[in-house]
Amino acid sequence: MLVIGEKINVRTKLYADAFKERNFEPIKDMAIQQVKAGANMLDINIGPARKTGPELMLWLVENIQSVVDVPLCLDTTNAEAIEAGLKVHKGKALINSTSADPERLALLMPLAAKYNAMIIGLTLATGGLPRDANERCALAAEVMASAMEHGVPLEDIYLDPIMVPINGQQEQVKEILEAIKLFRELNDPPMKSVIGLSNVSNGAPEEMRGLINSTFLTMAITVGLEGAIVDPLDSMIMQSVKTTSVILNQSLYCHSYLETS
Amino acid sequence: MLVIGEKINVRTKLYADAFKERNFEPIKDMAIQQVKAGANMLDINIGPARKTGPELMLWLVENIQSVVDVPLCLDTTNAEAIEAGLKVHKGKALINSTSADPERLALLMPLAAKYNAMIIGLTLATGGLPRDANERCALAAEVMASAMEHGVPLEDIYLDPIMVPINGQQEQVKEILEAIKLFRELNDPPMKSVIGLSNVSNGAPEEMRGLINSTFLTMAITVGLEGAIVDPLDSMIMQSVKTTSVILNQSLYCHSYLETS
Repeated sequence: MLVIGEKINVRTKLYADAFKERNFEPIKDMAIQQVKAGANMLDINIGPARKTGPELMLWLVENIQSVVDVPLCLDTTNAEAIEAGLKVHKGKALINSTSADPERLALLMPLAAKYNAMIIGLTLATGGLPRDANERCALAAEVMASAMEHGVPLEDIYLDPIMVPINGQQEQVKEILEAIKLFRELNDPPMKSVIGLSNVSNGAPEEMRGLINSTFLTMAITVGLEGAIVDPLDSMIMQSVKTTSVILNQSLYCHSYLETS
Repeated sequence: MLVIGEKINVRTKLYADAFKERNFEPIKDMAIQQVKAGANMLDINIGPARKTGPELMLWLVENIQSVVDVPLCLDTTNAEAIEAGLKVHKGKALINSTSADPERLALLMPLAAKYNAMIIGLTLATGGLPRDANERCALAAEVMASAMEHGVPLEDIYLDPIMVPINGQQEQVKEILEAIKLFRELNDPPMKSVIGLSNVSNGAPEEMRGLINSTFLTMAITVGLEGAIVDPLDSMIMQSVKTTSVILNQSLYCHSYLETS
């Protein structure tokens, strides 16, 4: 299971400022904290970063990988910034992300192939959000076709069914679970999936978010989810990851299984 | 989803004494408390009750149904006590339980047919615990065959895959999830299942039991579980029942969905 720490994100002012000022201290602290809590990959979200993206991503990848020994998930719409990060990344990076749009696929799949990176394929095209599990599967097929065309192994693709808030789009949440299941069952090899978890509880009362997030995560893992972008500092999240792993007999039960990472 | 309150149980001294002394007060309190917390059925476990079973069960059913408006799950190995309870039970009772043993089936299926009751079919025969999901399915087929023979509709059967503790029988826990899924997928009509939840965390440290119970429950509901004998006073249990129901779009999301029952 890929547990991708979401905290280093331009939408948090602390990191937006740190990115701008090339101040590594807060970034370093958060990288170490997340890995300590159980993240085995870190998302580095620099936003669109239109101007200084490449330089910033290079600086982040080099510095973060000098303090934690995990691969990174390079999160920006700026393909040049992705490539700058891939050039210096140690181990197998995860590109976050391409949509199913032909132009984006043509831009990003070659990068995954060239740098032997994994890549997140959003089941999203220019026509807006997919309406059900079937539309998600159709868009996934386009991502997979492009991967094969560009020589990216299907094992390196993580399909993202696009998480939506249960407050407002309740009927879609069930379709997302169904899509995760179908990605595995309908394809050979069974296709992996990843979600940006927190969005499911967007707009829910603050005290309910942990419960909704961890319950959805437990359900998604049960139907085959293989990766999630999460807050690893939320203990309910890591409890869910570890307990499902024990119940699915993927890690050994012992009384102190929660304390191991 | 059948949420069957487990608290009125001869293994708790308070109720063992109350049963013996026909002291209804503590039983009444616990019946009301469980229904208030969200149980929509109550398990009444009187143990083997070899001597006074029929008289005791009759007394319990009449009195409990005079204070709470839910059906009861008549839990004893004494078939005469089951019948005594069924005679006075209002609404559709649940017999807990028959095994897949031919003698028990021949004894209990006719009671389910005669009193139009539902019945739990344990996937258990004289040979000991089933070893995997396939053995559970084979035993389930025997329960279903007996039901058809005795004129019990398959919709009235709840198959019980026999919960075991994750501490000691970890690999079986995954097989139980698989069995719940197969009961539905392999049969027409899709067969319902029920579990005695708490056993999954037997022997685990006290502070871990709520997490293991509620995580397993969430996973089991995800693969199709339709009933569980649980402690409805454990808030994690009811949180799991309600949140999965909202995520599966079976009840409407609103900010206060946890407070509704």
